[in-house]
Amino acid sequence: MYVKSLLITGANRGIGLEFVKQFLKLPQSPQWVFAACRNPEKATDLKTLGETYPNLRIKQLEVTDRESIKDLVTSVTSDLGEEGLTLLINNAGCLKRLQLNDVTQEEMLESFQINSVAPLCISQAFVPVLKKSSLQSPGDGGYGYRAAIVNISTLTASITDNVTGGNYDSRTSKAALNMISKSLSVDLKPGRILVSILDPGWVKTELGGAGAKMEVSDSVARMIKVIQGLTMDKTGTFLNYDGKTLPW
Amino acid sequence: MYVKSLLITGANRGIGLEFVKQFLKLPQSPQWVFAACRNPEKATDLKTLGETYPNLRIKQLEVTDRESIKDLVTSVTSDLGEEGLTLLINNAGCLKRLQLNDVTQEEMLESFQINSVAPLCISQAFVPVLKKSSLQSPGDGGYGYRAAIVNISTLTASITDNVTGGNYDSRTSKAALNMISKSLSVDLKPGRILVSILDPGWVKTELGGAGAKMEVSDSVARMIKVIQGLTMDKTGTFLNYDGKTLPW
Repeated sequence: MYVKSLLITGANRGIGLEFVKQFLKLPQSPQWVFAACRNPEKATDLKTLGETYPNLRIKQLEVTDRESIKDLVTSVTSDLGEEGLTLLINNAGCLKRLQLNDVTQEEMLESFQINSVAPLCISQAFVPVLKKSSLQSPGDGGYGYRAAIVNISTLTASITDNVTGGNYDSRTSKAALNMISKSLSVDLKPGRILVSILDPGWVKTELGGAGAKMEVSDSVARMIKVIQGLTMDKTGTFLNYDGKTLPW
Repeated sequence: MYVKSLLITGANRGIGLEFVKQFLKLPQSPQWVFAACRNPEKATDLKTLGETYPNLRIKQLEVTDRESIKDLVTSVTSDLGEEGLTLLINNAGCLKRLQLNDVTQEEMLESFQINSVAPLCISQAFVPVLKKSSLQSPGDGGYGYRAAIVNISTLTASITDNVTGGNYDSRTSKAALNMISKSLSVDLKPGRILVSILDPGWVKTELGGAGAKMEVSDSVARMIKVIQGLTMDKTGTFLNYDGKTLPW
């Protein structure tokens, strides 16, 4: 599917920043790339990109703040004018790798807030904007939808795949995100909005750490290919960077 | 396995209260049944049972309060003396049935706090007491463990089974509980503590509502049978009231 407009959270670094870069450099790049981050003032990489790409709009977003989400909807809607939003990528997340002895209520709740509840509330807030895009478009190019939400999860959120235990914050909050995505996929199907869950693989980012295997650029290039090829029969599925279906 | 001592949360009503009743009435009933609830003063059913069964101990517990969990450990450990705890049933939970339009950050976080984080923090706090039981016992009667945690989940927490969407609070916080249980099962296996997840079915309780199919007494009787028959090869699995394995 052609992504006419894109909103991505956590866009100032790592996978988020790379998504922004690669979408901007596509042969048929989006008309709007909305790059949301907590502190646009300090997002120097995004600001540098903005000098070359006028279709990049840097937006302020505190994912856990209801008012901030509301302001983002207003701001993005105002830029889009009569258009709807084509693609929302919920990428912002946190990773603490808490083991059983380290678990505290506060740390767990913070993880749920950032990794599970925030993507849900952001999706909820943007459904009308996505629907606008979905309903406006006369045809769907054979894809079966014209607007989509992609939630960035992780293979470690697969309960089936969990044979090493631990990692309570990330595993559980992302498993919750998988369930949220599944419910969203069912609820938004009548509005012709696709919902997909992607595992970027073990990527060399600040969060990924030293042992990571894949370059960020490689992971994101593959995920963009997967996103471009998504069809409505794949809604509500959990896919890796190569489009392989992962078990729940 | 013979349950020598049992601690159950949310014991003042519904499934929790029924577990207490039926365990007390077993031919070989536990030496201690610790029934934890938020407000022991108002737990009239438990108090009435206490008049007949001296092995019933009613305990105060606010599942979201770290100090309250700590106090419970102290109190239970003091009653047990040299013994460890055999079985912890994390049963306390909440159900809001939030649909997409109703979702708020606050309501979602409360659900995660009660349904996911609390069982994790209670389990974490009781691991030493369960381990004591596990390590004390010379044999395991062929079951492969001598202490267990049972987390009460729900079929609606199965991502595979979610074809109707919605219900964001319960589905996601209980899917998170399933993941927590899976990690616990791996982490506690070396200490010979089994961790199981049970779906009680759709039961006629205050939470279950009017459409429910099964009597509480029937569901709990079946779950007790499942618990008594659990062997270590079943640790980390998601079972229904008849012992059938459910998909994640």
